[in-house]
Amino acid sequence: MKIILKDPLDMHLHLRDGEMLKITAPLSAKYFSGALIMPNLIPPVTSIEQVESYKKRILQAIGENVFKPYMTLFFKDSYSYEFLKEAKKHITAIKLYPAGITTNSEGGVSKIDSFSLKEVLEAMSELEIPLCVHGESEGFVMDRESEFLSVYEELAREFPKLKIIMEHITTKDAVNLLEKYENLYATITLHHLYITLDDVAGGLLRPHLFCKPIAKRPEDRMALRKAAFSAHPKVMFGSDSAPHPVSKKESLGCAAGVFTAPIALQALCDLFEKADVLDNLQKFVSDNAKNIYSLTPPKKEVVLVKEEYEVEERFGDVVPMFSKEKIGWRVESVL
Amino acid sequence: MKIILKDPLDMHLHLRDGEMLKITAPLSAKYFSGALIMPNLIPPVTSIEQVESYKKRILQAIGENVFKPYMTLFFKDSYSYEFLKEAKKHITAIKLYPAGITTNSEGGVSKIDSFSLKEVLEAMSELEIPLCVHGESEGFVMDRESEFLSVYEELAREFPKLKIIMEHITTKDAVNLLEKYENLYATITLHHLYITLDDVAGGLLRPHLFCKPIAKRPEDRMALRKAAFSAHPKVMFGSDSAPHPVSKKESLGCAAGVFTAPIALQALCDLFEKADVLDNLQKFVSDNAKNIYSLTPPKKEVVLVKEEYEVEERFGDVVPMFSKEKIGWRVESVL
Repeated sequence: MKIILKDPLDMHLHLRDGEMLKITAPLSAKYFSGALIMPNLIPPVTSIEQVESYKKRILQAIGENVFKPYMTLFFKDSYSYEFLKEAKKHITAIKLYPAGITTNSEGGVSKIDSFSLKEVLEAMSELEIPLCVHGESEGFVMDRESEFLSVYEELAREFPKLKIIMEHITTKDAVNLLEKYENLYATITLHHLYITLDDVAGGLLRPHLFCKPIAKRPEDRMALRKAAFSAHPKVMFGSDSAPHPVSKKESLGCAAGVFTAPIALQALCDLFEKADVLDNLQKFVSDNAKNIYSLTPPKKEVVLVKEEYEVEERFGDVVPMFSKEKIGWRVESVL
Repeated sequence: MKIILKDPLDMHLHLRDGEMLKITAPLSAKYFSGALIMPNLIPPVTSIEQVESYKKRILQAIGENVFKPYMTLFFKDSYSYEFLKEAKKHITAIKLYPAGITTNSEGGVSKIDSFSLKEVLEAMSELEIPLCVHGESEGFVMDRESEFLSVYEELAREFPKLKIIMEHITTKDAVNLLEKYENLYATITLHHLYITLDDVAGGLLRPHLFCKPIAKRPEDRMALRKAAFSAHPKVMFGSDSAPHPVSKKESLGCAAGVFTAPIALQALCDLFEKADVLDNLQKFVSDNAKNIYSLTPPKKEVVLVKEEYEVEERFGDVVPMFSKEKIGWRVESVL
């Protein structure tokens, strides 16, 4: 069995910077046509100069691969209309983080509502800059996403022309919200399609499966699968692939993030094939994102075959999801 | 401020064996009069010879301390009445594990109901041997204890003379069940009084706080605190102190267990004092257990004072709870 995925897109990707970038960038660039690049560096990407300089470092790191980094800014409530108008030429979206909610998000926004962020969100709406949101409250870890949904609702209602992407959704409740507001969209990760909290903490504790938002309940995973497997037109693949060196994972205090970029397409084929919906994968990993973001990524055809592939133990000092395990599909060639 | 705790008892303790026993036994024996010793060794403690030989190793390991190990057998549905009658002279309780539910429980029982276990439980009831249970289903990790409660109910109803101890309870639902059946009792750990899942996985992932059953929701912790702080007469302190070498905690797959024995009394004083219920601690850490199990432990008076104590980073190669953190109380002397 074989499938050709055209112009795969990863609409939520952490490439990091420095030495880590040299590991991650070629791995994503090999199989993906493009990716939405998250801006939570240290310091966060908040100026056009930083966007351009980060983009340049990414393009240097990808080597000979054809790959388009769709750049983002780290949301600040101080952005002016003029700044955003200029920024629009350089970015694809702006990413909003609640302060301190995940890796390198300390400079995020502490009060997220339609009043506090009115000016910036109105400007983004008018300039047609999509808003990507890490949607979690500061509540109990299993409730954070559900508690944040009222914020999504308020923003969607108050800024009906603003495209709002609920990033890496993990709950049934978030999936259901897609039907309620025309301007709400979502990304879903590979790992949230695969795992629940049981995989993280039900047997041994698995630091390499620990992520934010944390994997939820079986019924939540079922809802995510239903949306992805049916290639819901408002849902895109976004890996949230988030590498940390092994020393930050297998430690006293383990950082959040699952590294999936190099094995994502293979694992998605496996999952979609087993659910007998392989035909819908093209939409989930590319077409929906092209439509939602109006993208024309560079042409790429990734040929995958149903043959066993044993995942590398590490890439550099990063342990990927499925390290040393077998996946039922492998990449045969990239055209 | 000062408190004298008389004959502290730890009614759920993992001392392990071999080199680890040499680390753990003196630490528990220093501050506690006695403890109920869990039988999940490799292989599990299932014969009188094993009980006596393990007891001997424990007594060798405690050194000069005065300490009574209350021994247990690992529940097997094959135990005969005659065996149990003889065993009763050597043990204080029998511990029932669902197969595979926690560390070294592979030889546990795969089908727990009043019919399958009828003979053994009737014999234990008649012989007045208490049944200690690790009460978790095989369901979703946050639901396992709640799902198991119907088993407790069935056993409590069918064997009304059998003392059943719900070990290391973690949920509001389990606390509520204490009122419903006269023959149901419970132990509560130190860590479940302190933490929720937020502490394990809400910020960085904390392997040294990972345990089975997993820490639950804030409202569950509140119910546990209410029961402990009021020294509910059916509730006893059982640390479930469960050491693993650091290599098994800060690793790819982290074993379940929090090591609390050497800091438990200090941390309990801190917690009870802050809740203004220090007067109830004596019952929680000793009197209730004496009544429930009819114990007469060796006399010991542990004098604790309200003075800052920085917890040791490690004991041997085990990282304790609160490693390098400060606790508001320390042990002044043991009489």
